[in-house]
Amino acid sequence: MYRHLLTILLFGPVFQVCSQKTLMKASPLRLEARIHALSRFGANPEGGVSRVAYSQADIEGRKYIMDLMKNAGLEVSIDPGGNIIGRRAGANNQLPVIAFGSHIDSVPGGGNYDGDVGVVGAIECIELLNEQHLKTTHPLEVIVFQNEEGGVTGSEIMCGKFKEEKLSYVTASGKTIRQGISDIGGDPSRLQEATRRKEDFKAFLELHIEQGGTLEKEKYDIGVVEGIVGIKHWRVTVTGKANHAGTTPMNDRQDALLAAAMFVTEVNRTVRSIPGRQVATVGVIRAEPGAPNVIPGKTELMLEIRDLSFAKVESVFEMIRAAGEKIEKETKTTIEYQPTNENLPAMADRRIQEMIAMSAKELGLTTLQLPSGAGHDTQEMATITPSGMIFVPSKDGISHSPKEYTSPGDMANGVDVLLRTLLKIDSGKL
Amino acid sequence: MYRHLLTILLFGPVFQVCSQKTLMKASPLRLEARIHALSRFGANPEGGVSRVAYSQADIEGRKYIMDLMKNAGLEVSIDPGGNIIGRRAGANNQLPVIAFGSHIDSVPGGGNYDGDVGVVGAIECIELLNEQHLKTTHPLEVIVFQNEEGGVTGSEIMCGKFKEEKLSYVTASGKTIRQGISDIGGDPSRLQEATRRKEDFKAFLELHIEQGGTLEKEKYDIGVVEGIVGIKHWRVTVTGKANHAGTTPMNDRQDALLAAAMFVTEVNRTVRSIPGRQVATVGVIRAEPGAPNVIPGKTELMLEIRDLSFAKVESVFEMIRAAGEKIEKETKTTIEYQPTNENLPAMADRRIQEMIAMSAKELGLTTLQLPSGAGHDTQEMATITPSGMIFVPSKDGISHSPKEYTSPGDMANGVDVLLRTLLKIDSGKL
Repeated sequence: MYRHLLTILLFGPVFQVCSQKTLMKASPLRLEARIHALSRFGANPEGGVSRVAYSQADIEGRKYIMDLMKNAGLEVSIDPGGNIIGRRAGANNQLPVIAFGSHIDSVPGGGNYDGDVGVVGAIECIELLNEQHLKTTHPLEVIVFQNEEGGVTGSEIMCGKFKEEKLSYVTASGKTIRQGISDIGGDPSRLQEATRRKEDFKAFLELHIEQGGTLEKEKYDIGVVEGIVGIKHWRVTVTGKANHAGTTPMNDRQDALLAAAMFVTEVNRTVRSIPGRQVATVGVIRAEPGAPNVIPGKTELMLEIRDLSFAKVESVFEMIRAAGEKIEKETKTTIEYQPTNENLPAMADRRIQEMIAMSAKELGLTTLQLPSGAGHDTQEMATITPSGMIFVPSKDGISHSPKEYTSPGDMANGVDVLLRTLLKIDSGKL
Repeated sequence: MYRHLLTILLFGPVFQVCSQKTLMKASPLRLEARIHALSRFGANPEGGVSRVAYSQADIEGRKYIMDLMKNAGLEVSIDPGGNIIGRRAGANNQLPVIAFGSHIDSVPGGGNYDGDVGVVGAIECIELLNEQHLKTTHPLEVIVFQNEEGGVTGSEIMCGKFKEEKLSYVTASGKTIRQGISDIGGDPSRLQEATRRKEDFKAFLELHIEQGGTLEKEKYDIGVVEGIVGIKHWRVTVTGKANHAGTTPMNDRQDALLAAAMFVTEVNRTVRSIPGRQVATVGVIRAEPGAPNVIPGKTELMLEIRDLSFAKVESVFEMIRAAGEKIEKETKTTIEYQPTNENLPAMADRRIQEMIAMSAKELGLTTLQLPSGAGHDTQEMATITPSGMIFVPSKDGISHSPKEYTSPGDMANGVDVLLRTLLKIDSGKL
């Protein structure tokens, strides 16, 4: 406490400290050591982890993280939704909370950084505050959301978006979400009590690996996330006429797979023909009847379009549909579109984006504004509180793979930016 | 016998009768009635038949056909391979046999004409010879090959091409070929005795529906088959890099499905870019990992090319492979080709083709020379004896479907041409 007062005396109130060069920096070694320790839970022989939500590995990993949180002086609880919350009191506990965190569950065959960097990094922020005896004005919460990879379950519950019917969904662990929530210390019958109000939060921040290759390729230290892209999926059904591959001349065919192939090519051409970061993917295709000697009469594929602007998602789709009409005529087939799924874009708060960029600048780090092409818990938190995301580079852009890697220095950069940003928010700049 | 002698006296030897207008014509009504009667065996509620080889329906259908053959005075036997052989003595039984026939087994969900027209038509020829008391110089054999649809099993056995290991193959009936042969009256332990020598045959003829739409579309009565196309199959593997569909910019992708789609489009463009009747088909495609939100890292497809000239099959493949190399560069993927299967082309005997065309001309029927894009028992018989095929039109080019249809008049035209052709062969023109 004496040293804390001394800090205040020397540098003025905490909210002024944040812009000072003297603020202690994150420890790359400690971050690396904790990432390494966490990677034991669910470790795969070929590297990486399969720490899917609700699995024994997940439960043990959560225990390890809760121990770290407790050792860092946080008041740790598990909400009825199964999210881990570590609270640090502020100078004025009547003020709304500044929250930050991520997740530690992984995809099957995942890596050691996706989510984990944000959680270990959040705890590092707490350690740094402790080591410098800094007390924020607002209370802080480190949040470890449950089952991010299986559909941002924990953040949906916290933001009141979770639908009861999902409790029966079977997850990668083999357990239903209902069973899983019980097993990690939540209470599926009291999920509403896990819902937080807008007034509870001042802001939410998430540090995360980019999961793409842009920062590394273009040599930026920090990504200032503009928002999380909206995603729309369509089931596309191409109908032609199945026929004998030997007796049907090329000119008499109504080949549904040929039409689908032309469609896939047009999807790529169309999305690349206009400026912007929109992406479109066909990841699934199936031709019927599916024999080498039968011209396919039907082909189904899944079309996905992502962009930060949903209007752009729709306009790209309309361009693709127009291209599809030409293919229909050329191949004597029909193409039908059935929307199956959509996630609206979530925009990062502009002021928080500026604070992230400013914090990086203070640290001599270069920044790039970019969208997050992947979904994150922040997309849910952004619906109830101003939110921001900080990206650090992913080696070769690889994620959801044992080859996922972010260097200790890059992780530490991210933590330094996270800490400065939350102190800026705390200082009342939001 | 008296009337036969009279015919000889009036018209000279039998081999002269064949070119006369006075030769009795096939009965469209009788052909239609027998096709209808045969269609009861394995009838499907939606039309057509599932009379797969070795099924109860096949066994009952064979019984019906054998009864027809016996009633037509044929000496009926089942060879150890399970083929039905109906023999009609000639004036000189030391001469090699003129054989003709087809099959009555169907694909699952097949139609009432594929194979059946050739069998019912062959019996019709015998009826016509009987009714006119005509005796050929050569002995005749009506052959009903077993399991044509499951891989020309019967004709392979007869031509000494059948491999023992195939006895263990499970067919569409659920039975192995071994069991199936036993069930239809053959003897799988004595298959070699079913093998016929080249010297046994003078020629082989098969009347069949076209199974394509060319004759109907171009308004020809009779197809003079030039040969049965060769078929080659390749498993094509496109390898790119699986990646996150949200975080991987369009320019950084190595999308194996995009490359495969471009490949399918190029296959079609290439095969249509050169003159000829060659066809190429991609009927099977599979993208891995096969999720809407993952860029496919691998895509497998099956490529099939058919032509009457195997050199052309190979040259079309080389053109496709060259196009593939450009796609590899453009998409940063690799494309590998694994040949999986090949059937050599079988050419119809030129003299028999001329006799078919001449017979049609005598009847006032129009003819078109064309390849058979589908496989037939004739492809095997052509390896041991001069062979020919006569096609009659298929409505809308549809085959292997309940919608398969050939009119009674077209069937009768085919039988008339078949009869005249075999009489020409019998008269020593071959």
